[in-house]
Amino acid sequence: MKVSLNKKILDKNEECALQNRALFHKIGTFCANVISSPGSGKTTLLARTITDLWGRLRIGVIEGDIRTDTDAQKIRATGAPAVQIETKGSCHLSAEQITRALGSIDAAILDVLFVENVGNLVCPSAFDLGEQSRVVVLSLPEGDDKPIKYPGTFAKADVLLINKIDLAGHVDFDIERVIRHVRTLRPDIAIFQVSAKTGQGMEGWYDWLKNKTDRL
Amino acid sequence: MKVSLNKKILDKNEECALQNRALFHKIGTFCANVISSPGSGKTTLLARTITDLWGRLRIGVIEGDIRTDTDAQKIRATGAPAVQIETKGSCHLSAEQITRALGSIDAAILDVLFVENVGNLVCPSAFDLGEQSRVVVLSLPEGDDKPIKYPGTFAKADVLLINKIDLAGHVDFDIERVIRHVRTLRPDIAIFQVSAKTGQGMEGWYDWLKNKTDRL
Repeated sequence: MKVSLNKKILDKNEECALQNRALFHKIGTFCANVISSPGSGKTTLLARTITDLWGRLRIGVIEGDIRTDTDAQKIRATGAPAVQIETKGSCHLSAEQITRALGSIDAAILDVLFVENVGNLVCPSAFDLGEQSRVVVLSLPEGDDKPIKYPGTFAKADVLLINKIDLAGHVDFDIERVIRHVRTLRPDIAIFQVSAKTGQGMEGWYDWLKNKTDRL
Repeated sequence: MKVSLNKKILDKNEECALQNRALFHKIGTFCANVISSPGSGKTTLLARTITDLWGRLRIGVIEGDIRTDTDAQKIRATGAPAVQIETKGSCHLSAEQITRALGSIDAAILDVLFVENVGNLVCPSAFDLGEQSRVVVLSLPEGDDKPIKYPGTFAKADVLLINKIDLAGHVDFDIERVIRHVRTLRPDIAIFQVSAKTGQGMEGWYDWLKNKTDRL
């Protein structure tokens, strides 16, 4: 009984995800699902990306949080459109929630739509939202053992942003070890070492993003 | 259907949790369920606690991780007993997993049994393991907005360890803001500002722990 019910939920999510993906293709908007632990710096990273690429890429954000709309407020402060989904306790976003949120943001005028998932390195990875690419953010203070301990999330990522590299020297983190493990899980992953705070290393990520939108 | 099934799962977990709690009471072992985001420093904190309190408190650890037994290895390196539960994808520990793990560790000879939950600030908070106290670890690099964004986890905590205070000055984190918000969610929570790396502030936490075991 448990299995069949879970299957049904996944099927419903998959169905909505397919519809979302078809819509993004039709309107020519690149959608990226951004996943990380709480506090890895997702919102800061997206806000800086929006600001630095202003005039080159039109970017909007769907924010997922258990409570509060503080992240959407931070994104709106950049001038970009943002919709907040409050999951009220749920540990991940679902494709259906994205479908509903698309009623509150004009995705067709955007080049890039980021979906900032609930801060959780486990559950969001099991739910396809209909995105074209999946971005995982891992910050230095979290430690270099995370790809081994949470392989499912890293194995499904198209991009890994290693964030807070401005803290190198203040925390123990072996970047080469992380890159080696992540490439074992996902050989073709794109990896960028960045600091959303100082701006260091962000250009590689911006080039990747622009390349994705150029292809649409 | 979904509601009744969830109810049933919770009931089974609750049943096991009650049995675990009765056992801990009977054998006079203080059990603490330690919850945090990935990378907040739980394992380092427990390893230091074991080492610093060696000769004063006998401590053992049940480790929960999605994959690998690296955390149990780190604990065993201190000389303390540790059992690893690999959840194989599940985002939290269940009371039943603790019951099974108790078959592999002699809890009766311990003063303190720590259960280090899966790194996840959301899901573990919904599952009672039969612990006497719940400990939440929040590290400075995660940001001071976490209690507002993940209120459920902080509202159920008996202790908050604000970790990595050695990084104050390198990251933005308003400790007073965190304490204010957490006390709104849980007025009687015990809060300690610590660095498991340098040892700073750990004595208050050790006193709290010794006080708990003295009462058993």
